[in-house]
Amino acid sequence: MARSVLYMWMSLDGYIAGPDDDVGQALGRGGNRLHASLGYDGTDETVGVRPPGPSGEVFDELMATKAVLVGRRTFDHAGGYEGDHHDGVPIFVPTRGEPPAPASELVTYVTDGIESAMRQAKAAAGDGDVLVHGAEFTQELLRAGLLDEIELGLAHVLLGGGRRLFGELAAQVELELTRLLEGPDVTYMRFRVKR
Amino acid sequence: MARSVLYMWMSLDGYIAGPDDDVGQALGRGGNRLHASLGYDGTDETVGVRPPGPSGEVFDELMATKAVLVGRRTFDHAGGYEGDHHDGVPIFVPTRGEPPAPASELVTYVTDGIESAMRQAKAAAGDGDVLVHGAEFTQELLRAGLLDEIELGLAHVLLGGGRRLFGELAAQVELELTRLLEGPDVTYMRFRVKR
Repeated sequence: MARSVLYMWMSLDGYIAGPDDDVGQALGRGGNRLHASLGYDGTDETVGVRPPGPSGEVFDELMATKAVLVGRRTFDHAGGYEGDHHDGVPIFVPTRGEPPAPASELVTYVTDGIESAMRQAKAAAGDGDVLVHGAEFTQELLRAGLLDEIELGLAHVLLGGGRRLFGELAAQVELELTRLLEGPDVTYMRFRVKR
Repeated sequence: MARSVLYMWMSLDGYIAGPDDDVGQALGRGGNRLHASLGYDGTDETVGVRPPGPSGEVFDELMATKAVLVGRRTFDHAGGYEGDHHDGVPIFVPTRGEPPAPASELVTYVTDGIESAMRQAKAAAGDGDVLVHGAEFTQELLRAGLLDEIELGLAHVLLGGGRRLFGELAAQVELELTRLLEGPDVTYMRFRVKR
């Protein structure tokens, strides 16, 4: 059975992007430092290159996921991944109202709710995992009890402002740490969300 | 030379107290879970008892500090530690306006700014460290470049709301991880604040 796993890089003070994140500056001001541990400098040349150390291990796991479930906002900000997030796996995007035309045959807009979207993504992933992405979307999934695991890349930096990952949740959430990986600039914490 | 070290327990989503923290409920609603890893249940019987595991190690270091520098709000919420935080070490409380009468001869209200307060606390600590406490106060110290280290007890829980440790800072802060301790309910991250 596929698990849904959020992969996210966050500053110690809870931000996944610096201030003024937008299309073309998806990580906001200063937010590139969140991904610096991955060797990404924001240029196309570095994206998708396997980083060394524990970041490489997490990178491999992320790349081994068999479906993507992403919030609409994040999807749009990322230019719809130009229709292919990684390795041609299917991408599911929960959407309110009339969906646009999909950017590729890999993209499915889901209009009947996040539960349905998760069901479809897990079915598509088969024995692989579902890669979850998007901050507000993560909060929705947590509220609905639909997120199974969190792989948090905790960057050793305080951004001071920007877009927060968890925001104000309606409920308290219990987590079980299942793995801790130490890197020089980032600590990876893997959690199982307790029900 | 004494170092100033913040000792703080924080949820993964950045809260050091649940909603509605106040005198008599210093950790807010649900906030007791932040200290659960220490074996504290909020009653007087458990406070000050050395917990097992990595929490015990951090507890020992905290108790070995030779002076306390605490924000006025936190100090008042904690009932002024009844005049003695631990082992009779001196307590410095930066204060605006006319200071109240100190609760004991260990307490010094400092009225000429946080730089002066830090200087006095470090002088009093001698070859020991200065224990820093208080969230808004920590933000002040970070802005002023007066905080040397952070010992963060990252509780494996999302509180969903409450009082945030770092809030909105004016500047980005770089941190160097110097130690990582893994406990079942809390991960301890020790950082040096880079200048």
